[in-house]
Order: sequence, then structure tokens, then C-alpha cells
Amino acid sequence: MSVSAAQGFRAAGATAGLKDSGASDVALVVNDGPRSAAAAVFTSNRVAAAPVRWSRRVLSDGAARAVVLNSGGANAATGAQGQADARASAEHVASRLGLDSQDVAVCSTGLIGERLDMPRLLTGIDAAVDGLAEEGGDDAARAIMTTDTVPKQAVSRAEGYVLGGMAKGAGMLAPGLATMLCVLTTDADLPADVLQACLREAVRTTFDRTDSDGCMSTNDTVLLLASGAADHTPEPDEFTHRLREVCADLARQLIADAEGARHEIAVRVVGAATEPAAEAVARAVTRSNLFKTAVFGQDPNWGRVISAVGTVPESVAAFDADALDVWFNGVRVCRAGGVGEPRDGVDLTGRQVQVVIDLHAGDAEATIWTNDLTHDYVHENSAYST
Amino acid sequence: MSVSAAQGFRAAGATAGLKDSGASDVALVVNDGPRSAAAAVFTSNRVAAAPVRWSRRVLSDGAARAVVLNSGGANAATGAQGQADARASAEHVASRLGLDSQDVAVCSTGLIGERLDMPRLLTGIDAAVDGLAEEGGDDAARAIMTTDTVPKQAVSRAEGYVLGGMAKGAGMLAPGLATMLCVLTTDADLPADVLQACLREAVRTTFDRTDSDGCMSTNDTVLLLASGAADHTPEPDEFTHRLREVCADLARQLIADAEGARHEIAVRVVGAATEPAAEAVARAVTRSNLFKTAVFGQDPNWGRVISAVGTVPESVAAFDADALDVWFNGVRVCRAGGVGEPRDGVDLTGRQVQVVIDLHAGDAEATIWTNDLTHDYVHENSAYST
Repeated sequence: MSVSAAQGFRAAGATAGLKDSGASDVALVVNDGPRSAAAAVFTSNRVAAAPVRWSRRVLSDGAARAVVLNSGGANAATGAQGQADARASAEHVASRLGLDSQDVAVCSTGLIGERLDMPRLLTGIDAAVDGLAEEGGDDAARAIMTTDTVPKQAVSRAEGYVLGGMAKGAGMLAPGLATMLCVLTTDADLPADVLQACLREAVRTTFDRTDSDGCMSTNDTVLLLASGAADHTPEPDEFTHRLREVCADLARQLIADAEGARHEIAVRVVGAATEPAAEAVARAVTRSNLFKTAVFGQDPNWGRVISAVGTVPESVAAFDADALDVWFNGVRVCRAGGVGEPRDGVDLTGRQVQVVIDLHAGDAEATIWTNDLTHDYVHENSAYST
Repeated sequence: MSVSAAQGFRAAGATAGLKDSGASDVALVVNDGPRSAAAAVFTSNRVAAAPVRWSRRVLSDGAARAVVLNSGGANAATGAQGQADARASAEHVASRLGLDSQDVAVCSTGLIGERLDMPRLLTGIDAAVDGLAEEGGDDAARAIMTTDTVPKQAVSRAEGYVLGGMAKGAGMLAPGLATMLCVLTTDADLPADVLQACLREAVRTTFDRTDSDGCMSTNDTVLLLASGAADHTPEPDEFTHRLREVCADLARQLIADAEGARHEIAVRVVGAATEPAAEAVARAVTRSNLFKTAVFGQDPNWGRVISAVGTVPESVAAFDADALDVWFNGVRVCRAGGVGEPRDGVDLTGRQVQVVIDLHAGDAEATIWTNDLTHDYVHENSAYST
């Protein structure tokens, strides 16, 4: 019940029949106030889905009272009809709850390029409205699942306020596909501009550094709603720190449940001249299919790591190719750009893999989280829509 | 015998025993002149292999008399010892052939991070020198194969001169892994600066637009040697045109034999404001694992195409997301950013797939060639070094 853990929130999950499986597919989160401050980060994909376009407008005034989410269809690449459908969903929620539709955000996830079954969705929304409860968070988290095998939730109880959230998907925000949706709620009392700044900063080092398969969705959305019901205004830095912890927790759950993954991989770059340089190098490694298949094969193939490092332009990250060190799970298999400790000292049988790359070019660092590239990834993604 | 098809060239393949399979693994190409003009394009990977560093120096004066190539080891990430080994290979060839070692280029391909077995390699070079013949091109093309299942050769006979070449690998030049090596030879008489300009231009629209798995090798090399033996100096434009045809032929052979591939995919972007914009959009699509697994599944999933298109920043390519058209093998499955003709009209059972994307933003176009992401790719690349 993490998305409804904070005071002032109710949530629900319901079944509209959008999924062939018959599993629940509509979630609703309502902020009963007294405040309705909100912040959001959306996909930077220029082919943005209809619900993203709608929700951008809703969030533009820093306020939202409810979010309706559906799985079983992304409502992306659906043209003017898709935008009308997103609006109709919001209007239906608004009329049932006595709200302004401009305060109702919409999120969708599923196949691109197909219209939602609106009669079913509206009936499902009715059921969700009827089911709204302070204990509804679990049902909501389950209703937004697509290829997820478990719901993702997190909650953090601070001095004076609570912060909770739910998420689905296995991609990244900018970029990432297999749509990532996340709704965060808090009963802290913070204005929208502070919420937005805190959310941007928390997302920057968590969801934005979670890169499952390098593909950016048309639908990725992270929403943060604040009810003010706890009548407590935390320091922005403290709130950001806690928000980052909750986002990091949810991001780790996403990677752990990524499509077909057998390994959760943290690529940590240290000794960089700047943090953006460290991030760029880490991202280059996490984007390498050859590196990711090697980890699947439990092969500490550091040659594929440094080949990926070498693709980062000098203008982006300073380093000397002959100075690079690479560790796989604590074993320095590459030293000074060449052979280090024996590969057979590395154990990659467990799910957790940590690769550390030292650029020897400064003191900055960054970590990107990803997973391996497996037969199951190919299977799930080649069979998904056919 | 395409690499020895032009007058003035001899070639050979030999077995040094670098490969567990016992297949041939050393190739030698010698330019007997009268000219020794040469041009080259190397990987832009900053983690450049020892042979690349050596050959860059050799080519810096626009002249080369011989190229020695080995499979069974990349001699990359091998430090100062690796550089000494590359130099020793060149010096051995030079002493056997009475050349200056600064005129002997070296290419290697295979696993990164292991030293070459130099006694075996030098013995293999001796065998290659002894086997040099004007009919040696076929043997040379076979000796550079790694995971290639067939040798790649091309030859073009023009009015007054001949142009031929061999290649191996399934990556791309900048970027690309599974190392791509290519040696081109001609008996035309052209100075090094003209050869270099022609080669850059030919590579730009062929090997540089061949993107098997988005990974750039530490060893990629394309060499062009001109003997002048035909005593004919073609117009640079005509020569470039012919060179482009030979490079395109070899590039297609690489894609057709890419690791585990079931489909050869041409992603053609039309209606772009500029050629770089068209190339950037096409490359974004060919880099999408979700797109590539969909093609493997014979699924004309245009949603994954336009999601990938949408990741290209506005500063790089102008387009309106609601104007995009996408064809799969001639069927416009996406029209104006939404649903077009029925997907079931698309036949993806054959090996050749053409995806056309119209940005409706201008008259420029570009094509990137790639292949699908398959179970066999994951298998080959997870089991390669273990």
C-alpha cells in the first residue's frame, strides 16, 4: 500500500478487461489534500504518447488531484483519436470524483499503435473509483504491471511525513522502453516548484541511470503528488535525499525484474574528470550488447568493457587507454589497459554483478544500472506483439 | 583471388596454429609495384589495438608495400608487449621480403587481452611468404575469417584498371565490433592523397553505414593499396564510384554473414532535411534491440520504429512526430504517426527486410544496413571466450 501510505491518499486497482490475461489493468490514485501540489518528469521521446501529452498539460500548473493509469495498451501513435481517448479518461475520473479534468493525470502502458478499448476502460475506471481505499496501494501497484512479474513498491517514513511510491516496467526514463511508470506520494507540505526541483534531482541519479536495454519509451512518466496532510514542511535537501532513496529502491526493483534478465549489473566508473564523463563512460558500457551477452555467459570479458569505454569521444571523457583498470566483482582483471588478475578468479554465478572502471583522470564517479542480454530477452521481445 | 586480382599483387594464406580449430590464420598481401601508394581508415576507438597503432604510423607517409593479417588473436589491450609483437611481425615480413618494416602494415582479429603466440605467428608468416602467388587471394580471404562462415571477396574490372578486395567480420568501422578488416587493391596509378580522399568517401556511405550490433572494435581497419601496374590514372570521381561499389558489395556480405543473423535489414530514411539527419534517424532505429528482436520474430512492429525515431534530438533531425510514415517491405504500416495498412499484409519470412521511414521534412536520405537480434547472437556472444 505504498502509494497510499502517506496521509491524504486513496488508491485502487480494477479490471477493465484490456489484457487478454484477465489480470487487473486500471489503477487510480487520488490526492484528498488539503494540498494538491505535484511535479513530474516525462519521457524525452519526441514520439510522446497521448497520455504523456495530456499529463504534461495537467502538470503545467504544478497541481494534480488524481492519476489514472492503465496497462494493456500504451495509447501511443494513436493520433487525434488517442488524444481524445486520454482526455475522455481524465474527464470520466473527474466527473466521478467531482474534480476538474485539468487536475487528472493519465498514464498508459502496453502495445504502441492500437486504440484503447474505451468502453471497457471507462467501466474499469468506475470500478476503480468504487474501490478507492486508504489500503488500495497494493492493488494499484498490481494493476499497472505488464511484463513485470512482481509489483514494485517502496515506502519511507521520515520524522513528520511519509513518502511512498509504486512503479512498473524495465526501462529508463530518458531514455528507456518497456515503459516505466512511477507514481510517488507524500503527505509533506511542499510547493510545486520545490517538488519539481527535488524530483528532477532524485530522478537524475536513479531512474535516469537505470538503462535496461537502451530503448526510450514513448510513455515514461514519473509523478510526485503532495497532499500536505501531515502538516510538515521538510527541508528540501532532506526531502530530496529521501526521495532519491525511494527512487533508487524502485529503480533497483525494476532492474531486478527486467525482461529475461539473469544478472543485475552495476557499472561504476571512478576516477573521472567530471560526473558527466563518468556517466557517459558507464552508459557506453551498459549499452554494449557484447558486454551484456558476456555477463549472461558468466564471462568477465574485460576486453568488451574497454572496447566500449574507447567509444566515448575525448571531448566527453578524458582518459588514457593505457591507464584503464577494470574490476569484475572485486577482481582487477584489467590493469593499465592490459591483462590483470586471472579471469577464473571471478565468480559471476550470482545475480549481482559489479563492474568498476577506473579512468585515472580525476575524482568524479557515476554508476549506471543495467542487466544482461539473454535468450529470454530475445524470446520475450520477438514474440511480444505476434 | 580478388585481393590479388589487380596487377602487381601477390597474396597468400597460411596456418600458424593460432586458432584451436586448426584453420588457416595468417594472410599476406604484397604490392610489387611499381607504385606503393596506400590509404587507410582505422577504428575511431580510443582503445586502439597494437596493430592499429603500428599501421597508423606505417600509413602516415601514404605508402605501404605489404600487409600481414592474422586471425586467432586481436593483439588488443596487450600493452607495450603487444606493440612490440606487432612491430616484430612487420619486421619479420620486411626481412623476408627485403622491405622496410615501415612499409608493412599489420592487422589482427580475435579475442582482446591475450598476447599472440609469436613463435607460431612468425612460423606462419614464413609459410605465407613461401606461398605468395598471384592466385593467392582466395587463401588470404579464408585466413582472416573468425566467426565468419564464408570468405568475403569482391572484384571490379574497369576500363584500364582492376579493383578488388577482401573483408572479414560483422561490425562497422566507426563504430563496430567483431572486428572488421578489409584490404582493397588496385593497379590504377593514383597518388596517396587521392586514394585517401576516395577511400574516405567510399567508406562513409558503405562500411560506416553498416551497423551490425552497434559495438565498435579496437581493430577495425580498411586498407587500400595501389600498384600502378596498369599504368592508368582514372578520374577520381569514377574511381570513387567504383570503390564505393566494391565496398558496398563487401559490406553487404558482412551483414549477410553477421553473427547469428536471420534477416538482413536496410533502414532507409527519406524526406529528411539533411543527409546527416537521415543517417542519425536510421542509426537510432538500427541500434534498437527492441526493433531488432521484433524483426527476428517476423513482426512488423512499427511502434518500436517510431519510438526509436523519437529518441533523435530536434537539434539533430527535424520532423513532426505526427507526420511520420513507416513501410515494412513495401507496406505502409504507419501513416502520419498512427496506424496505417494492416500488419498482416507484411511478409517478413525472407532474409531481406527493407524499412522505409519518411520524415516529411526535406529531400535528403540515407540507409543503414543491419541485421536482427537473435537467439544465436546471444548464444555466440555469451559463449565466445569461455
